Amino acid sequence: VLRALMQALPHEDFVYLGDTARLPYGTRSANTVRAYARQAARLLTERGIKLLVVACNTASAVALEDLTEAFAPLPVLGVVEPGAAAAAASSERGHILVTGTEGTISGGAYPRAIEAHRPGMRIEGQACPMFVALAEEGWGEGAIAEAVARRYLAPWLGPAGPDVLVLGCTHFPALHAAIRAVVGPEIRLVDSAQPTAQAVKAQLEARGLQRPGSAPGAFSLMATDAPERFARVAPHFLGRPIGPDAVEVVDL
Amino acid sequence: VLRALMQALPHEDFVYLGDTARLPYGTRSANTVRAYARQAARLLTERGIKLLVVACNTASAVALEDLTEAFAPLPVLGVVEPGAAAAAASSERGHILVTGTEGTISGGAYPRAIEAHRPGMRIEGQACPMFVALAEEGWGEGAIAEAVARRYLAPWLGPAGPDVLVLGCTHFPALHAAIRAVVGPEIRLVDSAQPTAQAVKAQLEARGLQRPGSAPGAFSLMATDAPERFARVAPHFLGRPIGPDAVEVVDL
Repeated sequence: VLRALMQALPHEDFVYLGDTARLPYGTRSANTVRAYARQAARLLTERGIKLLVVACNTASAVALEDLTEAFAPLPVLGVVEPGAAAAAASSERGHILVTGTEGTISGGAYPRAIEAHRPGMRIEGQACPMFVALAEEGWGEGAIAEAVARRYLAPWLGPAGPDVLVLGCTHFPALHAAIRAVVGPEIRLVDSAQPTAQAVKAQLEARGLQRPGSAPGAFSLMATDAPERFARVAPHFLGRPIGPDAVEVVDL
Repeated sequence: VLRALMQALPHEDFVYLGDTARLPYGTRSANTVRAYARQAARLLTERGIKLLVVACNTASAVALEDLTEAFAPLPVLGVVEPGAAAAAASSERGHILVTGTEGTISGGAYPRAIEAHRPGMRIEGQACPMFVALAEEGWGEGAIAEAVARRYLAPWLGPAGPDVLVLGCTHFPALHAAIRAVVGPEIRLVDSAQPTAQAVKAQLEARGLQRPGSAPGAFSLMATDAPERFARVAPHFLGRPIGPDAVEVVDL
């Protein structure tokens, strides 16, 4: 999501917080995720942000309303709504399979959001927790990733299967090639990164919050633990190298 | 570990606490793990335990001394020392490969403990974080588990390879068959469960703390978050079904 944001808004400054001490959020209860999300948001507001992006599907699914109320009038955007809008718009046959963490799938946030955009669709869900582990390990491509994707997805495929598959976790685009190899060329893969970046851009414009000038923006990275590991994993997602000293450790 | 304890000590009562709200401990600082371990131990002592087993490699490695002092005279046993003793005793050629989480491997607790039992051994380490994800997903057996085990372990195998492999994480015995299929029949697989159960049995006998009578013991399960998930995952480890209402949620 940060990568898409930096591409869509190259003149903005970004401050990113990875709650590495308490991940994964995907297996935690909604109340716990809400409490963690509030702590993370508080630290980011103390850094003077003008808009908050909840760049985690699990936190977006269960904590967005709570964060919006708690930090008003700060604009707060999640990744579920933009991803759901893109999925609803992409489907020709109105049949969507949503993949995500256990928390995201069991909470049903994507079906609700998709249904709000386009009622009467057929929406199914498949939790794929191993995708997170594969992405974190840097094993998003190759035979193991494909075997895992096949195990989760093959039961849903076929002539009567979905025409859109939602990558409903920010880790899952790291498995894009493996998922594509399993589902074949016909199914559209939708993830939230680009739609979220466009939604953020639209919000900034609507509120007159764009940064003036044409100088390239800065970005800073914070993590709650294990900055060396963060610096090793982050390039898989961000598409650029990260020095181990580039990650500031913060305490929530 | 609980399964081995219940088999070795069928007449004892067990109370188990899984800190599911704050796992994994392996990514946290030693001070934080010690603080969490103290909180968990305090709750267990309030339940009237006569002996405390720290059934987690990370917590055993960094918090055992602190717990022993804080809760004296309560006997406190960890899983690293029994596992290391069993590994040192099992090796003929003195060449051991320790597997574990990233935290356990980078902290070096097993090499130190093995070396203390038998100096001069060749001890190598391989972090296998995907094993945790596979065990949590209930995918400890089968082609995917074997492919993951092969990727981690094949580089260490061969004529000059280890003759003992330590399963240095309480999750890893769930992958026993897959690891065996990869390493072949010659390498001895050592995990901490049985050695820890025997160490607990010996402690109870030495201190005269055995439960009298021959009635079967009871067990109760507590978790700090997501009891439904705990009830779903626990049978993979415990080897018996667990009802969702069998798990009490507690707050540390």
